[in-house]
Amino acid sequence: MDRQDEKALVGETAAIQYVKDGMTVGLGTGSTAFYVIKKMGEMIKAGMKLKGVATSKATEKLASEYGIQLVDINEVEALDIAIDGADEIDANFCAVKGGGGALLREKIIASAAKTFIVVADGSKKVQSLGRFPLPVEVVPFGYKQTERAIRKLGCKTELRMKDEALYVTDNGNYIVDCSFPSIQNPSQLHQTLNNIVGVVENGLFIHMVDVLISVNMQNAISVDLAKKE
Amino acid sequence: MDRQDEKALVGETAAIQYVKDGMTVGLGTGSTAFYVIKKMGEMIKAGMKLKGVATSKATEKLASEYGIQLVDINEVEALDIAIDGADEIDANFCAVKGGGGALLREKIIASAAKTFIVVADGSKKVQSLGRFPLPVEVVPFGYKQTERAIRKLGCKTELRMKDEALYVTDNGNYIVDCSFPSIQNPSQLHQTLNNIVGVVENGLFIHMVDVLISVNMQNAISVDLAKKE
Repeated sequence: MDRQDEKALVGETAAIQYVKDGMTVGLGTGSTAFYVIKKMGEMIKAGMKLKGVATSKATEKLASEYGIQLVDINEVEALDIAIDGADEIDANFCAVKGGGGALLREKIIASAAKTFIVVADGSKKVQSLGRFPLPVEVVPFGYKQTERAIRKLGCKTELRMKDEALYVTDNGNYIVDCSFPSIQNPSQLHQTLNNIVGVVENGLFIHMVDVLISVNMQNAISVDLAKKE
Repeated sequence: MDRQDEKALVGETAAIQYVKDGMTVGLGTGSTAFYVIKKMGEMIKAGMKLKGVATSKATEKLASEYGIQLVDINEVEALDIAIDGADEIDANFCAVKGGGGALLREKIIASAAKTFIVVADGSKKVQSLGRFPLPVEVVPFGYKQTERAIRKLGCKTELRMKDEALYVTDNGNYIVDCSFPSIQNPSQLHQTLNNIVGVVENGLFIHMVDVLISVNMQNAISVDLAKKE
């Protein structure tokens, strides 16, 4: 099974197993979340009533194309579920997200969901986090000070660019991509980063993932529930 | 000595004692910081070379009027000092700031300064924090979720308004004013708040104040250095 097939399989499985009639669903961003949205479109065509809250402008567009009615996150009390991809995820269900630049909205939607489901092809599962640069969203005011403060934690930093200008998030902030040799204590790093003045949010998702839908070594689908402390 | 006289006294004392020729100074916002800026203007007229970084658009305007050359926070490696007011400050030099809505820029500038000096009239000194509502800056996306999460910490919350619309900070965010019965453990609350998804920063300044310039019970100026752990 190639990676594209894996993405399709885990995305469709998530929709079939977890999306129920009448739900409001947090809709992820990226190549795996795409298959969740596509399958939800089919379920709506088959008669289900579903609403969605999008984690990015790209997902908003996609959801509209597949006939999913979008609602404003501020208009809902809580989301039934949210389904999203991840850049990497370890055995403790700690994930890094935000390669696509939507980490803040993804995190707000994940935390608003009663059940947060990650869909990931096999290549995303890692022993320990850190292979993928950790995105950190920072306010533009004083971003160089903030970047220096982050660098003191022992990582290489790079300001994300787009078309030769600084990349600007949907929330008007910048992204610092942080390469750590490895992330031994994600929980502590998460807290340390968020306490740096100028940091809005970081791409570590700790104790947030409830379900991981992935593919195992035998090329079979695996649905694993997180053990929460 | 009335409150206005106290503000003038502590502001001018800060400038006279701490501002030296050639310095780049973080310039605070508010009625006490005003007197620092005014005195710096006099010092420039008397021949000193001083530059400033402003914590708000209002302060930018004021500094220009008093002949202080403004520099961009991103253009300086570090600030020699920053001088700012506070809404309240306790015996451990923990402060609440942000009543004026500039808490994020104030905090970025305070943390960029080698020495951070707070100027406060006697009315700002409290036994324990919490009399003044704690401002928390939140991203607009999902702000109602964020406000609900903050409320779970045991406070009453109020979204700050201006002219019958939501108040928007210089960074494009909203402010939730949080009334706690009292703040027993500011350090812990600071960390808890910053770990709520959607919170950009909060108005607690912990282990940041190096010097407090105030007025004591005998109406005399007092300059106290913080004991840092």
